[in-house]
Amino acid sequence: MNWLDEIKYDAAGLVPVIAQDEQTGRVMMFAYANRDAIALTHEKGTAHYWTRSRQKLWHKGEESGHFQHVSAIQLDCDGDVLIYKIRQEGGIACHTGRESCFFRTLVDGQWQVSEAVLKDPSAIYAHRHE
Amino acid sequence: MNWLDEIKYDAAGLVPVIAQDEQTGRVMMFAYANRDAIALTHEKGTAHYWTRSRQKLWHKGEESGHFQHVSAIQLDCDGDVLIYKIRQEGGIACHTGRESCFFRTLVDGQWQVSEAVLKDPSAIYAHRHE
Repeated sequence: MNWLDEIKYDAAGLVPVIAQDEQTGRVMMFAYANRDAIALTHEKGTAHYWTRSRQKLWHKGEESGHFQHVSAIQLDCDGDVLIYKIRQEGGIACHTGRESCFFRTLVDGQWQVSEAVLKDPSAIYAHRHE
Repeated sequence: MNWLDEIKYDAAGLVPVIAQDEQTGRVMMFAYANRDAIALTHEKGTAHYWTRSRQKLWHKGEESGHFQHVSAIQLDCDGDVLIYKIRQEGGIACHTGRESCFFRTLVDGQWQVSEAVLKDPSAIYAHRHE
């Protein structure tokens, strides 16, 4: 059986993917992937996802240049969640310009932003408007 | 606004939760939580989830003794995914008796089990049958 067929996709054909920095172990991002996105990730070595909001295949970095180089793919016990171990190009995974999407921590009953913006999103996505 | 209301729950009232070892950064488990489970996690300091298969609140460790002590809760940019930073009691998060649920790695087109069973599941869940 093909390894892609051993993954259990949900009713929409998707699985959750955790993108984790291969060096630091930091969780950089969370997204979804379908079979094609996973196959492309394996084939090309850069992270591909399925964007549910835009309903299309998403080659992470295609707009920002912040590609994710995938050194390993891991599968959980139930076969329905993946980890992409990545090296984050540009050091920025989040569309807000921060290293990780998980930049808010609960402190005294409030979500505290615990991380600075490394690059202004308008600079990251400038070519969108060109 | 209450911090629990700032979380964006899906149509079923759930959010994905990544349980990550607070020391090693290892991703131990992936599950879902609803508002009550998150509130209890914060209140009690141990990880609570919502099990979709059994459709009920799930205090992780209630059967196995493998409770997860939560030192921090983090939220992503979209407000719809959480990280629980945990200390894993017993050093075993997975129901298969392994440290982490992510014990399979893709090697040469095959899912290779890259981690030993630390404790036989029948011993972990022995009291289930008592």
